[in-house]
Order: sequence, then C-alpha cells, then structure tokens
Amino acid sequence: MPQLSIRPAIRDDITTILALSIGGNAPGRTNIDDAEDAQNDDYQRAFDLIEQDPNNLFFIAELAGEKVGCMQINLLQGLAGRGRMRAQLEGVHIRADHRGKGLGGEMIEWAIAFAKSKGAGMVQLTSSKNRPDAHRFYERLGFDRSHEGFKLSL
Amino acid sequence: MPQLSIRPAIRDDITTILALSIGGNAPGRTNIDDAEDAQNDDYQRAFDLIEQDPNNLFFIAELAGEKVGCMQINLLQGLAGRGRMRAQLEGVHIRADHRGKGLGGEMIEWAIAFAKSKGAGMVQLTSSKNRPDAHRFYERLGFDRSHEGFKLSL
Repeated sequence: MPQLSIRPAIRDDITTILALSIGGNAPGRTNIDDAEDAQNDDYQRAFDLIEQDPNNLFFIAELAGEKVGCMQINLLQGLAGRGRMRAQLEGVHIRADHRGKGLGGEMIEWAIAFAKSKGAGMVQLTSSKNRPDAHRFYERLGFDRSHEGFKLSL
Repeated sequence: MPQLSIRPAIRDDITTILALSIGGNAPGRTNIDDAEDAQNDDYQRAFDLIEQDPNNLFFIAELAGEKVGCMQINLLQGLAGRGRMRAQLEGVHIRADHRGKGLGGEMIEWAIAFAKSKGAGMVQLTSSKNRPDAHRFYERLGFDRSHEGFKLSL
C-alpha cells in the first residue's frame, strides 16, 4: 500500500527542501545553506531557473499531509543508446524521524515509474562513498553500482 | 598551447558523435548504436530535444579541422548549496588514434572553464568502474572520487 503522496514542489517548499537537504547530507559535509533564509535571492533565483526548465523537476513527498521527503529529477536527453533519455536523481532525502519505514524505497520506486512514463531508458544517481547504508538501499532496489562518481568544486 | 578547437555540435555531427561513443565505450558494453544510421528517427528526434534544451549542450572538439572528440554538458540548477548549479559531463570521448596526446585533459579543462563561465559551482561526472585509467585521469585533473555511481536500465 503506498503511504506517500508525491507532488511537484512549489516555491513555498524551498524551506522544506533546504531543511531536508541539510538534515540528510553525508556525514562531514559542510552546509552553507540556511532553511530560514529561503526568501534570499540565491534560492529565489534558483527556483525561477528550475521552474523555467521543463526537464528539471523537484518533488515533495507527503505522509498524511506532512512533508517528509524530497527529490530532484533531471531528464537528460542523449544521443547514444539510440537517443536514450536518462532520468537522474539528485537530492533524495527523507526526514530523519521518518526513516526505516520504507518511505525512501517508495519514493525511488515512484521515481522509476515516473522515468518510465517519460520514456527514459535509464535511471542514475550518485551516492557519497561514506553512506554504505544508502548503497545497500539502492542495490536492493535493483541499481548497479557500476560507476565511480567524480566531483570538482569550483 | 591549446591544440583543440571546441564548438557546439550541429545535426551533421550525429554520425561522428555515435562513432566516437561506440569506439570509446567501457569494455564489455553492448552497443545498440550504429553510426551509419544517423538519419534514423531515434537520433533525429533526440537531436531535436537536445537543440530545444538550453541546458543540454553537445560539443565537438576538432584538431586541425578533423573531429577528434565530443562531450555533453548538462547544466543542472539546484537549490542546495545556496542555489548551486552543477555542470555534468557525459559522453566524453577522444578518438582512439588521438589518445595519449593530452587532448582529453584539454577538453576537460575547457569544460571546467565553460562551467565557471555559466556560474556553476561544481563539475561532476561518472566513469565506469572498469576504466581505472580514466579514474587516474580525472583525479589528476583535480576531481575527487567521492561518490558511488548507480545505474538502473529500464
């Protein structure tokens, strides 16, 4: 039985998304965000750009009317794989006090179904190497840990 | 001294991009692409979608007028990191007979500068676990191999 209700994020959700991101980051990650500062131009302009991009989608997951999770899905059209589109997940977070109830799995299954409905041929994501629990979670959901993920901060 | 000239891909480059992708894939990867079939709707429609998306950019690298490399850069606007934009590299390929001359490094340095010029705060990519040579290459360029890359084919 699905427990979550998943809907597109609206501007009023910025505070929630920041709070979920800060609470859900990999250990040791420095946070420069402040959920209380959602009205700041940094976030408002970012939300404008996301809203203008039909391939950049943010979702909020609600449980009994309460916001308990979020994720971003980018639809990336490619040429290889006979013009394969990839759906990329980023910023997948479940509120700390709601973990361990299967909500994360439900959110990812929803994302996979969403990706299929858009015609994507692959779902991909990266997960910090210091989150072995998250790696087992994605492998249980059928993902192949086939790649190394490289990041360069500018 | 830069050797490469890098420019946006045009529709006539589809054959080149497919040939570079097929030649540059990780060992064992099954190819369903055919560079001779660039006129096929699969590729033409994909190119239409890429052209319509200002955040999805394909580039061709030329050496003395010859096409020797390609890469895709997706600009991914986020909310976390004070509205950080990520530039994601995908399908980075140098023609087999032109490897080992520093062209790959030059192409990635160009991509990093391009990402900066767009205001991105991070460059990211994944590389197949069976390409240790590529991993050393990206680490030499300053990338941090901090993440596991998960893929699920649909």
